[in-house]
Amino acid sequence: MSFEFSNKYLKQLSRAVEQEENEYIINEFDGMHSADISTVMEGLSAEDCKYILELLNPSVGADVISEIEDDTRNNFLTLFTPQELSKYMDNTDSDDAADILNDMPVKVREEVLASMNNNEKVQYIIDLLHYEEDCAGGLMAKELVKANINWNVSQCIEEVRRQGQNVDKIYTVYVVDDHDILLGRISMKKLLIANDLTKVADLYEPEIAKVYSYLDEEEVADIMQHYDLEVIPVINVQGRLLGRITIDDVVDVITEQAEKDQQAMSGLSEDVEETDSLIAMARARLPWLIVGMSGGLLGANFLGGFEEELSRIPAMAFFIPLITATGGNVGIQSSTIVVQSLASGGFQGSAMNRYLRVLVIAILNGLTLAALVYGFNMIFSDNHQLAIVVSFALFSVIMIASFMGTITPLVLSKFGINPALASGPFITTCNDLIGLGVYFMVAKALLH
Amino acid sequence: MSFEFSNKYLKQLSRAVEQEENEYIINEFDGMHSADISTVMEGLSAEDCKYILELLNPSVGADVISEIEDDTRNNFLTLFTPQELSKYMDNTDSDDAADILNDMPVKVREEVLASMNNNEKVQYIIDLLHYEEDCAGGLMAKELVKANINWNVSQCIEEVRRQGQNVDKIYTVYVVDDHDILLGRISMKKLLIANDLTKVADLYEPEIAKVYSYLDEEEVADIMQHYDLEVIPVINVQGRLLGRITIDDVVDVITEQAEKDQQAMSGLSEDVEETDSLIAMARARLPWLIVGMSGGLLGANFLGGFEEELSRIPAMAFFIPLITATGGNVGIQSSTIVVQSLASGGFQGSAMNRYLRVLVIAILNGLTLAALVYGFNMIFSDNHQLAIVVSFALFSVIMIASFMGTITPLVLSKFGINPALASGPFITTCNDLIGLGVYFMVAKALLH
Repeated sequence: MSFEFSNKYLKQLSRAVEQEENEYIINEFDGMHSADISTVMEGLSAEDCKYILELLNPSVGADVISEIEDDTRNNFLTLFTPQELSKYMDNTDSDDAADILNDMPVKVREEVLASMNNNEKVQYIIDLLHYEEDCAGGLMAKELVKANINWNVSQCIEEVRRQGQNVDKIYTVYVVDDHDILLGRISMKKLLIANDLTKVADLYEPEIAKVYSYLDEEEVADIMQHYDLEVIPVINVQGRLLGRITIDDVVDVITEQAEKDQQAMSGLSEDVEETDSLIAMARARLPWLIVGMSGGLLGANFLGGFEEELSRIPAMAFFIPLITATGGNVGIQSSTIVVQSLASGGFQGSAMNRYLRVLVIAILNGLTLAALVYGFNMIFSDNHQLAIVVSFALFSVIMIASFMGTITPLVLSKFGINPALASGPFITTCNDLIGLGVYFMVAKALLH
Repeated sequence: MSFEFSNKYLKQLSRAVEQEENEYIINEFDGMHSADISTVMEGLSAEDCKYILELLNPSVGADVISEIEDDTRNNFLTLFTPQELSKYMDNTDSDDAADILNDMPVKVREEVLASMNNNEKVQYIIDLLHYEEDCAGGLMAKELVKANINWNVSQCIEEVRRQGQNVDKIYTVYVVDDHDILLGRISMKKLLIANDLTKVADLYEPEIAKVYSYLDEEEVADIMQHYDLEVIPVINVQGRLLGRITIDDVVDVITEQAEKDQQAMSGLSEDVEETDSLIAMARARLPWLIVGMSGGLLGANFLGGFEEELSRIPAMAFFIPLITATGGNVGIQSSTIVVQSLASGGFQGSAMNRYLRVLVIAILNGLTLAALVYGFNMIFSDNHQLAIVVSFALFSVIMIASFMGTITPLVLSKFGINPALASGPFITTCNDLIGLGVYFMVAKALLH
């Protein structure tokens, strides 16, 4: 499903902006979901975006700014004065506001904060600016509804009424003590059907999942996914309630992680998108291409040592692509399975057992391919000795590449490096070289 | 974050089962989250799982069964009689129950349904069994809270009290007319702070996102992600409210899709996990290995046509790995970027513009690599003609592989095939062959 708008529609809007047809524009966006308005914006020029945004209600405008893509946003927000921005930030959820302000020069950020009217929000944002973007603290919003353990239900509902104005989706009411230490939660369902005079202390659920503010965002995602949560409270080391993380932000973390893994697997070294600048795109590709190229040149050097053999039996060169390609394919298959096991966070059983399995699978596939290639060579070639060499080398390469593919992600993960890199060009390059080495060693030993 | 339990702990539990230390077991699992119990179960034998499950409260047992991994579950559920299973299904959410029963032989399924006590649940499950697993109907649960448009708030709350027993997380109350046509929703917050006599008609939000039951699960995921929803109602073509999909199921869809894409990229042809049988693992890898092998043999055949040149200038063979590896790397990089653009569902701007960008990036990277390799060859080799051939071929291969990598995912996606396949072994094999072809054609033309 794409939420694209046609180029024709975008041009029409652009023309309306040019001719200042405000009524048409307001009508067009009336009742449209802010997520859709932000998609429209991503297809328009920064100037058009600003013009349209100013025609919208500031609270809608705030939502649109939150949901627009980072690149587009950073682009068109530079057109606003800090005073204009502050109007929107007053209406933005604290987590989004902190993310947006974090991307701005410190001076602009300070001026925006100073111009804001919503003092509670300013305090929230300042609190959030302390956290790294990729930890629980950087994901959380300060807006939530909390109730004191000593209250009764009717006081709780009063608080929902009061705090609920700032909190779009409440999900749950957190229960704290006088020092703001998180004790548990009450679901909206329980509040709704409870008697007004029931004590919070008699109603709340004390055992709930929570995360510390310093926890890595991917671990937050794992926890929320494991326990099927749509919201999780964030606490500091003393157990004080700091904020909450909602599932929509975590879904973004999961999606981004999957994209990063894909990019690691395909040898893109920076986080790039199709819309990035040409130089950024070229730069993101170059490092791994150069690694691959260096591997290729090393291979050329290595083959240089076999010049004599190659000139005597040129048919040896014919099977170079077969050997290197198979090594690469086997290595990537093996590493991907390990990477996914690591990601789903479960290796049950012993390491020994796993290596044994890898060995058996490699033998099965190695024998199959070696036999197929041997059969092919017996039929189409008259050099039987070479046929044996190729099949033997192929089998060895499959064995080694399986082992390398299994071990590399485990080693990377142990050193805190994204194991998905193990399915990328690095392993392919290594396997190319190992494959060449094995092939020519075997050939040298068996061919006379 | 992994939710593993140590082997020692699992062995201890196993021993406790053997010695029937029921009190120890019950104590151990008391208060443990069902998601964690199911993780423990995944490390135990099917017989141990059954023994432990029968010591737990049936509603906890039902949750554990829902959350346990498919493979483990299908294994140990065969130990239960249909009558034993029905006790758990009475307590399982309808969407999970339908998924579980769908994996069973029809006869067992019918017997389970016939033995269940909760007639409303039986009806729900039978309704859900009609839907394909990968559409909105297959994802939805029947449990939800709905209110008639003609009611007032106090009737609504009464309904929450009544239906709320079956619905774990309510999220929202759906508003329907007398024919069950979905009209809108009321948030729990609004219900909580509204006056008891307020009419539902005056309180509800009429414009809400909804999906048809036949919509593909990935489109459901896109919509929920786009609009930041934690729950979405499912309707039939007449607009009648059928059920609702919650975000936890959609998070699973997103994660599975990412895994499938990774597997497609790495040439695994079935959905495999490290715990699958050896034969299944070997079989999942073989098809793409054979494709790669066939490519390699085709390459060998092609090179056979150049036997004379190779025996005259054996140094030509040295650069085969460089050429094929670079073609593969460039092709995968290009296709991954397109795949991710397709996945995030947005190509703004014209197709012409995109090809122009691809062209410029390819020229930039092609020139860089060709220059580097030329420099290397000028320093370390004395065959200047060959140096020119290699660099020229490298540049051409980069241009062609970029184009192939860009176009292939677009074509696959047009034909409804997962475009992530375009970053897999198929494209690598094609690029290997194209690379070889270009290299030897250029060599034949330039070398005398």
